[in-house]
Amino acid sequence: MMKVAVIGLGAMGYGIASSLRRAGLEVSAFDISAETRARFTADGGDARGSAEEAADGANAIVIVVVNDKQTEAVLSGGVLASSAPGAVLLSCATMAPDRARALAKLVEDSGRLYVDAPLSGGAKRAAAGELTVMASGSPAALAGARPVLNAMATKSYILGDEPGIGSSFKIVNQLLAGVHIAAACEAIVFARMLGLDIAKVYEVITASAGNSWMFEDRIQHVLDGDYQPRSAVDIFTKDLGIVTDISRASRFATPIAGSALQMFLMTASAGMGRDDDSSVARLYAQIAGLDLPGV
Amino acid sequence: MMKVAVIGLGAMGYGIASSLRRAGLEVSAFDISAETRARFTADGGDARGSAEEAADGANAIVIVVVNDKQTEAVLSGGVLASSAPGAVLLSCATMAPDRARALAKLVEDSGRLYVDAPLSGGAKRAAAGELTVMASGSPAALAGARPVLNAMATKSYILGDEPGIGSSFKIVNQLLAGVHIAAACEAIVFARMLGLDIAKVYEVITASAGNSWMFEDRIQHVLDGDYQPRSAVDIFTKDLGIVTDISRASRFATPIAGSALQMFLMTASAGMGRDDDSSVARLYAQIAGLDLPGV
Repeated sequence: MMKVAVIGLGAMGYGIASSLRRAGLEVSAFDISAETRARFTADGGDARGSAEEAADGANAIVIVVVNDKQTEAVLSGGVLASSAPGAVLLSCATMAPDRARALAKLVEDSGRLYVDAPLSGGAKRAAAGELTVMASGSPAALAGARPVLNAMATKSYILGDEPGIGSSFKIVNQLLAGVHIAAACEAIVFARMLGLDIAKVYEVITASAGNSWMFEDRIQHVLDGDYQPRSAVDIFTKDLGIVTDISRASRFATPIAGSALQMFLMTASAGMGRDDDSSVARLYAQIAGLDLPGV
Repeated sequence: MMKVAVIGLGAMGYGIASSLRRAGLEVSAFDISAETRARFTADGGDARGSAEEAADGANAIVIVVVNDKQTEAVLSGGVLASSAPGAVLLSCATMAPDRARALAKLVEDSGRLYVDAPLSGGAKRAAAGELTVMASGSPAALAGARPVLNAMATKSYILGDEPGIGSSFKIVNQLLAGVHIAAACEAIVFARMLGLDIAKVYEVITASAGNSWMFEDRIQHVLDGDYQPRSAVDIFTKDLGIVTDISRASRFATPIAGSALQMFLMTASAGMGRDDDSSVARLYAQIAGLDLPGV
């Protein structure tokens, strides 16, 4: 039986760990929050007191933390040495491709395998085992990760045989997703400024050429005046920050992504960094003195 | 039998005139191009030598020209006086809401009715009678326009009882559409810069949360290296120009739309204003010295 460690039981990690258990894999997990570990135990799961303990003898380790730094901290904390020889490490955080390559080297130097495995899909799909994974890695690493990928995702794109390619696809997706959220928020408050019925705008736009996946998803939150975080503003200050870091390092201009990043930064600066990313609409409305539901 | 004049036989107007004929309406048309008039006649249509002649005794006049100025020029050219008393005027060009209201006044002062009737959907859907119309106007105007709307559109949103509301919805759609095209072009060349297989990027993004109607439609042109204009760059220098004009006049900031406008202006400035609007991708690639199909 395959033994899998899940490190990080946040909105995504908790769902992944639950999906792996449901698929019959032997799962040990760790999260820095004692409360989250207690919840996982109460749900019948096996939560351990450290990442190193959770990884003890594991054939696969899934790291579902916020960014490259946290992933590196986990890797430097003894999980590699405690895992089974030849174990495969799935790194799920969104990060710059060169960071994924650096972490892969660290893992491979310990005799373990690395799969660059960023995710698409929110907490709900994670809980249902219905994520999309944008994966890349050596054939051996991907073969070792297969039972885990099958349990957590309905679609695993295999995008190349080197770490970094999966992360590159993910960051292109985040460029678009971030711009679309900011543009959706700009457009719906612009519509409000024009005096339009924004529920009607939602109905017309979602059936027109101006639609995007993000407009359809996030503007529903604006109509509901519900800014509980499904995905927070700070995710996009981070991810569009990665886009613009890569741009600057590569001498490649991304002016649209740059503008969108500034809107997420302004929204975070106004105190809404941990709220739902559709809060960019609240910022536009607050600045212009316009009312929206819940503002 | 209802007599309808169609003024402007461009990509959209030609299809609309053909759809109205197919629906059994009596159609007279005018276009400034003698060649286009000859083509319409060769197709069995009734092309006249002036807009005024085409509108002679018409119960409805559909004006399908580029902008508010051309629409005003048509209205000032005698079409109202030559039309039947109580005739209804459908104005289809994208324009600022206050311009639609000003043109409506001009029409109503002549004892005719005005429907603010901007369109969504390209030349193909116009030819098939399958447009979407974002309509507003008085109940009498909308009732008079109904047979024309039914013949040209599968979906006619009735968005309010005053001119200007339809135009407001359209301009919100154009804000989003323009931003999404520019963002799609930025993202696909960013992906190329990262060394990714852009056909694979298209496959993954169109199945992910980064997708938009425009990404799916326009990036196919980029993959094909086909920049024949289905809709030209200059449409968006115009429409995002309307967005930013309204923004400035209303003291309402639209930074994302503003950035997208600059990219369309740069693309036009580089000589591609009359090419397909996906040419923004060519601009990004040319600037960065990257190859794309057809570049």
